[in-house]
Amino acid sequence: MSIQSPTVELTKELISRQSVTPEDAGCQELMISKLEALGFTIERLVFEDTTNLWARRGTQAPLFCFAGHTDVVPTGPAEQWTFPPFEPTLSQGYLYGRGAADMKGSIAAFMTALERFIDHHPDHSGSIALLITSDEEGPFINGTTRVIDHLEARNEKIDWCIVGEPSSTNLVGDIIKNGRRGSLSGKLKVTGIQGHVAYPHLVRNPIHEVAPALATLASTEWDKGNEFFPPTSFQISNIHSGTGATNVVPGDIVVDFNFRFSTEVTADQLKERVTKILDQHTTEWNIDWILSGNPFITAEGSLVNAVQASILDITGRETELSTSGGTSDGRFIAPTGAQVVELGPVNATIHKVNECVKASDLDLLSDIYENVLARLLPKTV
Amino acid sequence: MSIQSPTVELTKELISRQSVTPEDAGCQELMISKLEALGFTIERLVFEDTTNLWARRGTQAPLFCFAGHTDVVPTGPAEQWTFPPFEPTLSQGYLYGRGAADMKGSIAAFMTALERFIDHHPDHSGSIALLITSDEEGPFINGTTRVIDHLEARNEKIDWCIVGEPSSTNLVGDIIKNGRRGSLSGKLKVTGIQGHVAYPHLVRNPIHEVAPALATLASTEWDKGNEFFPPTSFQISNIHSGTGATNVVPGDIVVDFNFRFSTEVTADQLKERVTKILDQHTTEWNIDWILSGNPFITAEGSLVNAVQASILDITGRETELSTSGGTSDGRFIAPTGAQVVELGPVNATIHKVNECVKASDLDLLSDIYENVLARLLPKTV
Ligand SMILES: [Zn+2]
Ligand SMILES: [Zn+2]
Repeated sequence: MSIQSPTVELTKELISRQSVTPEDAGCQELMISKLEALGFTIERLVFEDTTNLWARRGTQAPLFCFAGHTDVVPTGPAEQWTFPPFEPTLSQGYLYGRGAADMKGSIAAFMTALERFIDHHPDHSGSIALLITSDEEGPFINGTTRVIDHLEARNEKIDWCIVGEPSSTNLVGDIIKNGRRGSLSGKLKVTGIQGHVAYPHLVRNPIHEVAPALATLASTEWDKGNEFFPPTSFQISNIHSGTGATNVVPGDIVVDFNFRFSTEVTADQLKERVTKILDQHTTEWNIDWILSGNPFITAEGSLVNAVQASILDITGRETELSTSGGTSDGRFIAPTGAQVVELGPVNATIHKVNECVKASDLDLLSDIYENVLARLLPKTV
Repeated sequence: MSIQSPTVELTKELISRQSVTPEDAGCQELMISKLEALGFTIERLVFEDTTNLWARRGTQAPLFCFAGHTDVVPTGPAEQWTFPPFEPTLSQGYLYGRGAADMKGSIAAFMTALERFIDHHPDHSGSIALLITSDEEGPFINGTTRVIDHLEARNEKIDWCIVGEPSSTNLVGDIIKNGRRGSLSGKLKVTGIQGHVAYPHLVRNPIHEVAPALATLASTEWDKGNEFFPPTSFQISNIHSGTGATNVVPGDIVVDFNFRFSTEVTADQLKERVTKILDQHTTEWNIDWILSGNPFITAEGSLVNAVQASILDITGRETELSTSGGTSDGRFIAPTGAQVVELGPVNATIHKVNECVKASDLDLLSDIYENVLARLLPKTV
């Protein structure tokens, strides 16, 4: 890695812009100035507190898109950082700063890959786009999902999309995500009848009612997963009940739970099965449901093949397909019919203090992205 | 009820002394001045913050004892009271004030019953005592239990004891308590392994582990009770777990529970059975146990017979024996071998705002207490 690496230099410029979600802090304008020079048509799409960018070069199909976000999570206690989180610092081959890995490094690699690719292939086939938002780390209401709505409204279709989320685990390119599980959350409230522990015939203990229901939910096999997904999992994250007094049976209990689900089951099927279990054990209950995303999968095909081949070309590595981990904005893009793959740097330090990325990995990433473009959008014949 | 009722007048004098637990506020000194005039020997037993009184008239067996407390629970929001809680007020036949029912009315009825009984039977057989504390509503560490230790140390034995707790439900004397269930509490902590809900193979969810254990505990039949006791009951009062975040599996869970148990099972047996159930379902757990009291029972015999006959004499009512409800200081007295019965006014308003007692019930209560004394300690022949 050379100090003259354009990808590292651009990453540093982006990190120094303090774009804590939903702020963009000028990151997208920096990109726009470069994209205009490369012949991209720019659309600034500001929705409420969120800054979004849709940039496209070319009008023909197929359309290849890089997707990502300029916002970062808060720094946490700044005094715990070895280097100030918004002062990008190179040390022993690593670039430190909030967003270095998630995902300003990927954004910079998108840009430098595009610069080289367009320089060499000004007459590439198809079109290239960037879909950039400033709310991926926030409530994701006014970001990617609204840009997609905007594109769908005019029937603009993405064929292939690389999301720059840090997918790698140990070495850049060792893992790419070709799908994500769905996420369905529920806040359960079971209502009983409060009273004194010494008068059990006058109470209806909501903790006693919910316990066997939770035991059943925790031990249920929801599905067996499939070739792309592990089995659907159920986890309780919070449970609270009680007045504080040890001689009072409380009047209700609140339980937060979450499903990460495969394509073998739907959110509605999960809701139905939970309802049946609760009806068996509890008298009076209610759930507020939140569906954060349905599962999506990009099976092997032109995008996955190109990404795997490019990673092998540049790094000599066989890459592994995975659908594990949290959600990403890919869940908004895949339902349009696009093939979607997440490929980014090593994710070991994301959302932590001393977030960092190996500087030379950013150059590798830029080379992989360029290689993918060359495979998918060859020179027009 | 006449405004000239000495029992009501004395209750008012006691209520106006603001003896919020563990304060006595001069209640016992007021009693002592009267007891000395009646020929009682007085022992003031002050332990830490608690004022106790042991007063005895006579040296012969058998020893009859009235037991009670001069402390009261806090008033709660004073502005919600119709009459100021420490300004005893007669209204429509009811005497209002904190402690009216629990249990300054009983204390006053003890005193007036003694005054009349001793006036008529100055040469009664056996002995009469009062055991009065100022911490029954508090932690009950320095009250009745220490007075009993003091008596046991010099081998002074109570044969019969009436505790003045408000045992009546609708009409004075309709119910007396001839025992109490035991109370065993536990604070359970189950430890798991914290992590992200999206990586279920890396976590050990303590909520999932404890749920089937709680379901089993809540549905277990601990015993069938017996002629004196309802079946042993188990209630969970508090359960808390969770970081607040809905995507994090927490590292531990804390559960408060309580047994009210009969004489068909011991505290040690309950602990053993809980241990077995937890071992079946959870990996790492710990319980802090608190035994508040073992169950005790005064089967039918001379005290129960005398009390039932006196209630019938004075009120025309058949009384019902019960062991239900919370704990009382009877649990410290019964283990010495004494027969113990709780008999006091109607308990509908105790520990609430607008605590009150029917004024005429205090006169009835005083008459019942006097009648019991006459039955158990007749004139020496
Ligand atoms: Zn990200
Ligand atoms: Zn009481």
